[in-house]
Amino acid sequence: MADTALELRSEIKKEGKLEISLAEVPMPDPAEDEVLVRVEASPINPSDLGLLFGMADMTTATVAGAGNDAVVTADVPENLMKALGPRLDQSLAVGNEGAGVVVKAGSSEIAQELMGKTVAILGGAMYAQYRCIKAKQCLLMHDGVTPAEGASCFVNPLTALGMVETMRLEGHTALVHTAAASNLGQMLNKICMKDEVGLVNIVRKQENVDLLKGIGAKYVCNSSLDSFIDDLVDALVETGATLAFDATGGGKLAGQILTAMEIAANKTAKEYSRYGSTTHKQVYIYGGLDRSPTTFNRAFGMAWGIGGWLLTPFLTKIGPEETEKLRQRVAAEVNTTFASSYTSEVSLAEVLTLEAIAIYGKQATGEKYLINPNKGM
Amino acid sequence: MADTALELRSEIKKEGKLEISLAEVPMPDPAEDEVLVRVEASPINPSDLGLLFGMADMTTATVAGAGNDAVVTADVPENLMKALGPRLDQSLAVGNEGAGVVVKAGSSEIAQELMGKTVAILGGAMYAQYRCIKAKQCLLMHDGVTPAEGASCFVNPLTALGMVETMRLEGHTALVHTAAASNLGQMLNKICMKDEVGLVNIVRKQENVDLLKGIGAKYVCNSSLDSFIDDLVDALVETGATLAFDATGGGKLAGQILTAMEIAANKTAKEYSRYGSTTHKQVYIYGGLDRSPTTFNRAFGMAWGIGGWLLTPFLTKIGPEETEKLRQRVAAEVNTTFASSYTSEVSLAEVLTLEAIAIYGKQATGEKYLINPNKGM
Repeated sequence: MADTALELRSEIKKEGKLEISLAEVPMPDPAEDEVLVRVEASPINPSDLGLLFGMADMTTATVAGAGNDAVVTADVPENLMKALGPRLDQSLAVGNEGAGVVVKAGSSEIAQELMGKTVAILGGAMYAQYRCIKAKQCLLMHDGVTPAEGASCFVNPLTALGMVETMRLEGHTALVHTAAASNLGQMLNKICMKDEVGLVNIVRKQENVDLLKGIGAKYVCNSSLDSFIDDLVDALVETGATLAFDATGGGKLAGQILTAMEIAANKTAKEYSRYGSTTHKQVYIYGGLDRSPTTFNRAFGMAWGIGGWLLTPFLTKIGPEETEKLRQRVAAEVNTTFASSYTSEVSLAEVLTLEAIAIYGKQATGEKYLINPNKGM
Repeated sequence: MADTALELRSEIKKEGKLEISLAEVPMPDPAEDEVLVRVEASPINPSDLGLLFGMADMTTATVAGAGNDAVVTADVPENLMKALGPRLDQSLAVGNEGAGVVVKAGSSEIAQELMGKTVAILGGAMYAQYRCIKAKQCLLMHDGVTPAEGASCFVNPLTALGMVETMRLEGHTALVHTAAASNLGQMLNKICMKDEVGLVNIVRKQENVDLLKGIGAKYVCNSSLDSFIDDLVDALVETGATLAFDATGGGKLAGQILTAMEIAANKTAKEYSRYGSTTHKQVYIYGGLDRSPTTFNRAFGMAWGIGGWLLTPFLTKIGPEETEKLRQRVAAEVNTTFASSYTSEVSLAEVLTLEAIAIYGKQATGEKYLINPNKGM
């Protein structure tokens, strides 16, 4: 085994420049309760982009050098620098999740049992050739599952499961989901079909209506049609959904959903309530595909909420026991309910190219990269 | 006692017209556990205007007839009619709260004990000469308190107390309040000073800064100044406030508050968190002084929420025992902490004039009407 390994880093300089590069770091040595994992597959998820790009304007990106020595540079808009204060001039490792093979293990039983096994990890710093991590954080893949198949065990699967669990915990009975043709959205459809939960999918293109109908979705509303609000109200009346998860964040969509929920609630109301329906209507924004301001008319009474939703605090809230149940469900259904697909497998060096940046800067297009940090090594 | 009494009614016709008029209704007769109250004082609060005006455009208001026979008519914008569906063609009584004297009581002990007493009521339909209501819903005024002094025992006092209780229940330690020079805002300052709770007041005019400083407010930020965000951040750092109550609803203010809370949280953060500060930041919108769309950039991480807040569901949530404690505090401090003042005392007929509508259509100006339905009778 080499003495050093490559790791992708993102740094924002005080001067307002983003730099993405590969760092050569000492090969980690696992402690008693740790294992060393050779990372073979780690996806670039939308949730990785915040840390990776640090709000820089990637249309200004340039690349200096080549291969493992390439450095990507881009400008960070001045008005965003204030919010980035705490991360300035720090070289940060990136990559939320991935999978690989345990190549070295600490002396504890739990670590030794994983030797040679394929494991999936949610732990950050996964865009690296090697990741040293506590054995108990590893999710053991079932026999025959490859690192590529196990690469996306957490972010999308646990988020989709977390949406359904949040629905149950907060007393709702059906869901709305936007940007619903995404990898995550398709998973959510599979979960809801399996668990018999009503799901209203919102997409912007007819091809995505067809895609979701093709995998069995019952309610798919196209927000580009003039009939969108009416279609949405009909689906909300039928499903009774009063909770939405919105991946777009910006624009009018969150408000439109609350308005449609209010109309749906009033359609079945028996008497006029002066402050609108008393049914609590909630939209959680969990992504930011649309970076424009969020804007809404408050034409949906007073029983409503819009808020951020993030996987990690949710898992903290439900606690380790419930979290483990969700993890084990993912491991058991990794090639069915939670199967992911990718358009390209790339090396760490291949991430540091303008072509790659142009593609993963637009995840909504359907392009999805899987990094193999040990590709060709 | 007469056989009939006057009551103010609001009705929206299917054709898109609002009508406000006085109805002559049979004098109610109290059941065993009820009392009949001669209403002598009932305020026009901002929270009454939704039911009273039904989203009609009051600049189109006209008056036909005069005195008790006057009928105010105004147009309801067509795009708002859908949301008003459940109240169409129903003549609705108006007036959330008020006070008066018990003139007739049912046979039960609890009702008989109130005979001749001055009581305050939160029950709706208070813009009426007489209100029949369950004895246990009445809040008995202490000796010597007049109906005019007890008219506003609930909406503003319980809302202000509800804000402080919400702060405690949801784990915050200090508050932000907008439109803070209002009657409610002044009460909130008095409560927070008494209870030693940090309070950041936001106002739009220097005269309101002076007003609040004059009653002892420590933190008052003027949103019209260029230094507003910096001033707000400083006050948030000093108080640690992570919960705001916003009376305006529209525009950018709610988002600015969340952004300032995020900056304040990051000022004390020890390491960079990729999704922003993990401190939950919350804004509750409880009013709609600004009817323009709510709009915000989501530059405040993922631990945030914006939602509607309304007194009645809050009281339901804390339950009857806690609610009674709050009511008794109001009764005890009605002439100190919870004292209200009004610019005019008007009769029911005087409400049905264009002059009155022009004034109470703009509560933010500081004009505040007190209706005495038995004025001159």
